[in-house]
Amino acid sequence: MFQLPRGTRDFKPADMQKYRYIQQQISEIFQRFGYEEVRTPTFETLDLFTAKSGESIKEELYDFTDKGGRKLTLRPELTAPVIRFYIDQLQMEPKPLKLYYIGNCFRYDRPQKGRYREFWQAGCELFGPNTPEAYAELIALAYTQLHSLGLNNITVNIGNLTIIDALFTQLNLTSEQKQYLPPLIDKVLYEDITHALQDFDVSQEHITRFINLLETTDIDHLSTHMKNHQEAREQLNLTKQVIELLHQNFQITTCQLKMSIVRGLEYYKGIVFEIEAPSLGAEKQLCGGGVYELISLFGGNDVPTAGFAIGMDRTILALETEGITFPNPEPEIYIIPVDQTTIPQSITIATMLRTHGYITDLDLLRRGVGKALKYANTKHYQYIIIIGPKELEQQAVTLRNMMTGEQTIVPYNDLLSKLE
Amino acid sequence: MFQLPRGTRDFKPADMQKYRYIQQQISEIFQRFGYEEVRTPTFETLDLFTAKSGESIKEELYDFTDKGGRKLTLRPELTAPVIRFYIDQLQMEPKPLKLYYIGNCFRYDRPQKGRYREFWQAGCELFGPNTPEAYAELIALAYTQLHSLGLNNITVNIGNLTIIDALFTQLNLTSEQKQYLPPLIDKVLYEDITHALQDFDVSQEHITRFINLLETTDIDHLSTHMKNHQEAREQLNLTKQVIELLHQNFQITTCQLKMSIVRGLEYYKGIVFEIEAPSLGAEKQLCGGGVYELISLFGGNDVPTAGFAIGMDRTILALETEGITFPNPEPEIYIIPVDQTTIPQSITIATMLRTHGYITDLDLLRRGVGKALKYANTKHYQYIIIIGPKELEQQAVTLRNMMTGEQTIVPYNDLLSKLE
Repeated sequence: MFQLPRGTRDFKPADMQKYRYIQQQISEIFQRFGYEEVRTPTFETLDLFTAKSGESIKEELYDFTDKGGRKLTLRPELTAPVIRFYIDQLQMEPKPLKLYYIGNCFRYDRPQKGRYREFWQAGCELFGPNTPEAYAELIALAYTQLHSLGLNNITVNIGNLTIIDALFTQLNLTSEQKQYLPPLIDKVLYEDITHALQDFDVSQEHITRFINLLETTDIDHLSTHMKNHQEAREQLNLTKQVIELLHQNFQITTCQLKMSIVRGLEYYKGIVFEIEAPSLGAEKQLCGGGVYELISLFGGNDVPTAGFAIGMDRTILALETEGITFPNPEPEIYIIPVDQTTIPQSITIATMLRTHGYITDLDLLRRGVGKALKYANTKHYQYIIIIGPKELEQQAVTLRNMMTGEQTIVPYNDLLSKLE
Repeated sequence: MFQLPRGTRDFKPADMQKYRYIQQQISEIFQRFGYEEVRTPTFETLDLFTAKSGESIKEELYDFTDKGGRKLTLRPELTAPVIRFYIDQLQMEPKPLKLYYIGNCFRYDRPQKGRYREFWQAGCELFGPNTPEAYAELIALAYTQLHSLGLNNITVNIGNLTIIDALFTQLNLTSEQKQYLPPLIDKVLYEDITHALQDFDVSQEHITRFINLLETTDIDHLSTHMKNHQEAREQLNLTKQVIELLHQNFQITTCQLKMSIVRGLEYYKGIVFEIEAPSLGAEKQLCGGGVYELISLFGGNDVPTAGFAIGMDRTILALETEGITFPNPEPEIYIIPVDQTTIPQSITIATMLRTHGYITDLDLLRRGVGKALKYANTKHYQYIIIIGPKELEQQAVTLRNMMTGEQTIVPYNDLLSKLE
């Protein structure tokens, strides 16, 4: 007996119906916002990801050497591959270029609830604009994705890494000291932050002010502490405009400033955001994204870029937690030949119904009407068609409506109109 | 600059539109025949595939050892994974169990036209029935898939491996000699077959008869040479019934007997079939399948199984060769704010239109009306909405129909009805 590889899973039909429903909805919303779908290979050269995220990422990669000696890896995320693709083939496309993807990614980490070693992401990258309306639209798109699926209890948190960096600079931290803080900020461990800053010889007054500014949701309050930092003031102004457009024009009222968002500082710059479903507890983040710089690092001609990715597994979990029912295609018609003599005519009828778009199945096991009826009932077929020698002679079928229990003899020629 | 891994490819938006169209059509037809979708992981344990196909398959696998020391491989095909899944979780499901999948597979072989190292397959497995109507329906399903996509010039060839084996037995071949012939038969190399059989001390009379039987499309002719082989006669009878049901009841006239089909003799048994698009030349096979035995080999409780897989890349090539146009979603509305003062209202209008399902984009670059119009034209938007201070004052927009050239001022409240 062969095992499913650890940390992976099989999708039963009911799981795939949920997945396809979400995929279809997400695709539709991306397209509605002017995005077009792209796809990149499942594996890439290893150096693509070490260039983006540093050597340490190797620890969580499924990397391998192929038979030609190439160092490859299953992709851990999709932004780096899409940027590679852009540089390779799409740099001359008119801007803005709006690309989306829905694909699987791989990470070798400890499997836990809602976290698999192979997982699915839906995301997008925006090439060209760096205006407040561009960033507001991007965040609105991510929110609309999750809201349209039926999630009502989600919050959008918007941060800005340029301002975080300015706050670090005000504390006179070395670049080494700066690297130590983000994980603590991300986890909102204020006590640990305090201890760390004390160790870095920051005064208690500055520590208190720093934590106060991390916690504020008031941009004007932050502005009063950024007087000497031109770039930070510009970013504060940008962030303010983005939040205003989201509130007033995109009509998204559940978004707020959250300075403690510190996503991959290596390549994210400026505005960053996350969307959470608080109902999920500790693993509540459904979506993350922001403004980043990767094109020049990968050897392309620089152009503003921003994007986000939605975790499809956690989104399904959140939908289940909120008790949303997923629509699924209902089986429609099950045809039972009473004996072998009526099998050919049963096939002819099945073929006719399928040609007209009906989900139609036919008993293939020659098991008798009783057992076949039981099977059709288990599978929730809406109509049963029974064809025996008597029906064959009359050029008709017995049609049973499983919802009403009504059963009638219907001539072949009337069957389609009767089903409508 | 980073390279795309050799033998793989990126899908541009136009490529993905074709792929998604085909995927959607194929899914719909599978469902119409009563099949339900499943999904298995992208990688499996290596021994799953060596158990199925022998050690030699390793040469064409992307196999690797993960960080926990597990020997894994990217899947080269999807039948073995689905059978593993069935044994693991689905054995108790009511029969027939009809499962389909659409997924990527990986093979390390020399890249060439229409052959990639990562490629997509759509296929299905049928668990339970072994009746003529079950096999005829399976073949009809494969044909309907390709025909519904728009392929008119395809042929269905049906063979039977039990009969091939009986023919070998009649020639008194050793099991070693038997293994030598299939590749030659598959490639229809009659001269090489003749030489091989001569080397195996088969008389010229028997060689001539063997080749004659390989070439025949007449089942009754084959029957006259199978008098002493009970199992082969049963299989001939089954094959005859399948072809009759296909012709008369599934109304598929382009199917015929082709004894030279010799798919993986290790696990295929009995009826096998292939569907070809002759327009593609040497690489013309779009679909292959048949009856196989894998469940007991994998440690499950035996049950009849059959299935097929369609190569999605070659199917797209065949559709292109037949000159079929793929439907694609048309961009609908492009909104241009004349200056910064009208951006918020432009967003409000865009949000309203998107909420009502329109594919709507908004100029995010503040580049002026002329350049924005040019961009919208390049992208083939059907309507342009221009919002300047004048329109803002009138609580209206300028709506231009790009197909007719008509341009009118439309109040906000009339916009939706005007677009309908």
